[in-house]
Amino acid sequence: MDYQRIFAQAIDRLHAEGRYRVFIDILRNKGSFPNARCFAGHNGPKPITVWCSNDYLAMGQHPSVIAAMEEALHDVGAGSGGTRNIGGNTHYHVDLEAELADLHGKEAALLFTSGYISNEATLSTLGKLLPGCVIFSDELNHASMIAGIRTSGCEKRVFRHNDLAHLEELLAQADPDAPKLIAFESVYSMDGDVAPIAAICDLADRYNAITYLDEVHAVGMYGARGGGISERDDVAHRLTIIEGTLGKAFGVMGGYIAADRNIVDVIRSYAPGFIFTTSLSPVLVAGALASVRHLKASSAEREGQQAAAATLKAIFADAGLPVMASTTHIVPLMVGDPVKAKKISDILLAEYGVYVQPINYPTVPRGTERLRFTPGPSHDEAMMRELAGALVEIWDRLELRVAA
Amino acid sequence: MDYQRIFAQAIDRLHAEGRYRVFIDILRNKGSFPNARCFAGHNGPKPITVWCSNDYLAMGQHPSVIAAMEEALHDVGAGSGGTRNIGGNTHYHVDLEAELADLHGKEAALLFTSGYISNEATLSTLGKLLPGCVIFSDELNHASMIAGIRTSGCEKRVFRHNDLAHLEELLAQADPDAPKLIAFESVYSMDGDVAPIAAICDLADRYNAITYLDEVHAVGMYGARGGGISERDDVAHRLTIIEGTLGKAFGVMGGYIAADRNIVDVIRSYAPGFIFTTSLSPVLVAGALASVRHLKASSAEREGQQAAAATLKAIFADAGLPVMASTTHIVPLMVGDPVKAKKISDILLAEYGVYVQPINYPTVPRGTERLRFTPGPSHDEAMMRELAGALVEIWDRLELRVAA
Repeated sequence: MDYQRIFAQAIDRLHAEGRYRVFIDILRNKGSFPNARCFAGHNGPKPITVWCSNDYLAMGQHPSVIAAMEEALHDVGAGSGGTRNIGGNTHYHVDLEAELADLHGKEAALLFTSGYISNEATLSTLGKLLPGCVIFSDELNHASMIAGIRTSGCEKRVFRHNDLAHLEELLAQADPDAPKLIAFESVYSMDGDVAPIAAICDLADRYNAITYLDEVHAVGMYGARGGGISERDDVAHRLTIIEGTLGKAFGVMGGYIAADRNIVDVIRSYAPGFIFTTSLSPVLVAGALASVRHLKASSAEREGQQAAAATLKAIFADAGLPVMASTTHIVPLMVGDPVKAKKISDILLAEYGVYVQPINYPTVPRGTERLRFTPGPSHDEAMMRELAGALVEIWDRLELRVAA
Repeated sequence: MDYQRIFAQAIDRLHAEGRYRVFIDILRNKGSFPNARCFAGHNGPKPITVWCSNDYLAMGQHPSVIAAMEEALHDVGAGSGGTRNIGGNTHYHVDLEAELADLHGKEAALLFTSGYISNEATLSTLGKLLPGCVIFSDELNHASMIAGIRTSGCEKRVFRHNDLAHLEELLAQADPDAPKLIAFESVYSMDGDVAPIAAICDLADRYNAITYLDEVHAVGMYGARGGGISERDDVAHRLTIIEGTLGKAFGVMGGYIAADRNIVDVIRSYAPGFIFTTSLSPVLVAGALASVRHLKASSAEREGQQAAAATLKAIFADAGLPVMASTTHIVPLMVGDPVKAKKISDILLAEYGVYVQPINYPTVPRGTERLRFTPGPSHDEAMMRELAGALVEIWDRLELRVAA
């Protein structure tokens, strides 16, 4: 058994397909978002502009978030020192869970160390607690939901993306007496489209299914208080479980679910991915608490971000760039080839100081490789025009097709 | 399908078995470890002493860790804003991985958001990359390793705890040509005993297996530079993969593996639990970097902690308390019943201001419920004598058996 050869071959496959990932080594500059410093391949840091951050609203640099973290750091220290059950349940955790429950109009909430683990742990545990459960999963669901569904051991039925007729067809085929769970996202992060939440809840009612909605790309971003698309569409009360993250619009790190008290209690009590892990650092929890509270009261960041996204889409479209049909804050440009997507990204960084990561398989299906821009409230129109000019130049240089 | 009834029944089962978990709501007091404030069930916070923290060396409150986190917070902000591949790879991450690789004498290291996910992601991905792999797993391995092994889809052979003869018997039974992986821990955290690492490496050599060692309860704590039991026993170079945490002795949060470059590269490139998650906050990474560097150079914390553990064991034994045969820094007292373990813990908190969590199933096997003490360098002998006195009083009150 030659282990080294097997591992080397696995790496070679990635190079051969043009999807070997090189991490770009950066430091953001607090107070001057979206500016950052890039370290890789340079003598000393080089200034760049970040166009692909999921800190959509720059809350990770907001003075109230920084102040809250600094205070917690000096009050209680760096880490929690234990699992939630064994010494790691701080008062910050209790407060943030109450705040998140309120944000989504639910009885309770539960923190996890990441959005990934909140999906994985909750879906796998729910499936195990409901004997014979069938899970209906949107085909574009995130890898963490897929991992949780697989671990649940439940029968999985995949419905075509946002396709209500297909979902209903699959629901109708299932045993009427079997427990059913519909798992989907509100904003799909790589395409920027939105699920028909109310209509999915109608189907859930008709077939007596419970619902699990991943709102990680929407919390903080949509709804009058940042409760996500489910708040904007006034359907939060119809969803069994809403899952969110503290690491994107809220600018910090961590994940959570919000649901009724019993569901939160069973996940808290049965999910290995919740039980057997050191809890979130109280410093992060304090920052997230400040961020959630700020975005409950302030819509300025959301409005600025939406305006920036609309402007960038219009500028890209005017320039004939292949901007995809996103209805949200996400602005993807289709490339359709991993090698070219990486090439464009490399030129942007080396020649223009623009950092946007190529998105390749397995994050998106093969043949749909793309660049994904996430303009924030601090990306101004001049920066966008410069960016579009650079892209048009590179598109020409690489002889990529530009719309007429 | 009455979902609410099923969830309510799942909770009722925990109450019936006496193992429903109540999280104790606390805030530690930076600068006066092990003192903290307790919120639950009181009017306003009540002062307590924490005896069950995994921040074994109080590094979570070390001035150099706090200073590093504060600096990062003001330099780059709260969160990383993305996955390692998409905008979330900061220079802190790069530096910490180099530091951890050096700590274990390996070519490379890889950070994860937790120790749980580092075990889950690495073991599941390794198993998938090695067709037909058989995984040999110690029966007391942590839940996160078990989760990873299950997800790998590999055949699993469980060997009796630290039992070399049984491990060899199972290795000899397996197909000589099949890839083999032996997964085990150095310090078992609930019993405090240590694996015979060198002898397990001998077996791995004989049967051409690779090895995966979880050192989460040992990194920072053992070895001249805090490289764990594998450093203390001078066997780090013989292990294929060493896994550790930043959330226990290093006092912050997060997990990692250290291995040769190719293995780290395949995990980095193939593991969903690494790829599809927002990277560790740079604030945490900066703190962990300071902590690892400090404990590489300073043994004072390790020595103080070992002395405290030895003193506490001796005091417990002298008092006739059922202290278990730990050979490490962990001091468990056997109770053997979940209801009594919780009762002792409740009395300690309410009457003595002592916080130690009862450890019940599934963290330990049923019938071996216990209290687990983790004295640190700041728990002095007077505190220990007070604690032992309180325990003897409670043991008498509850008519528990005390050794003659």
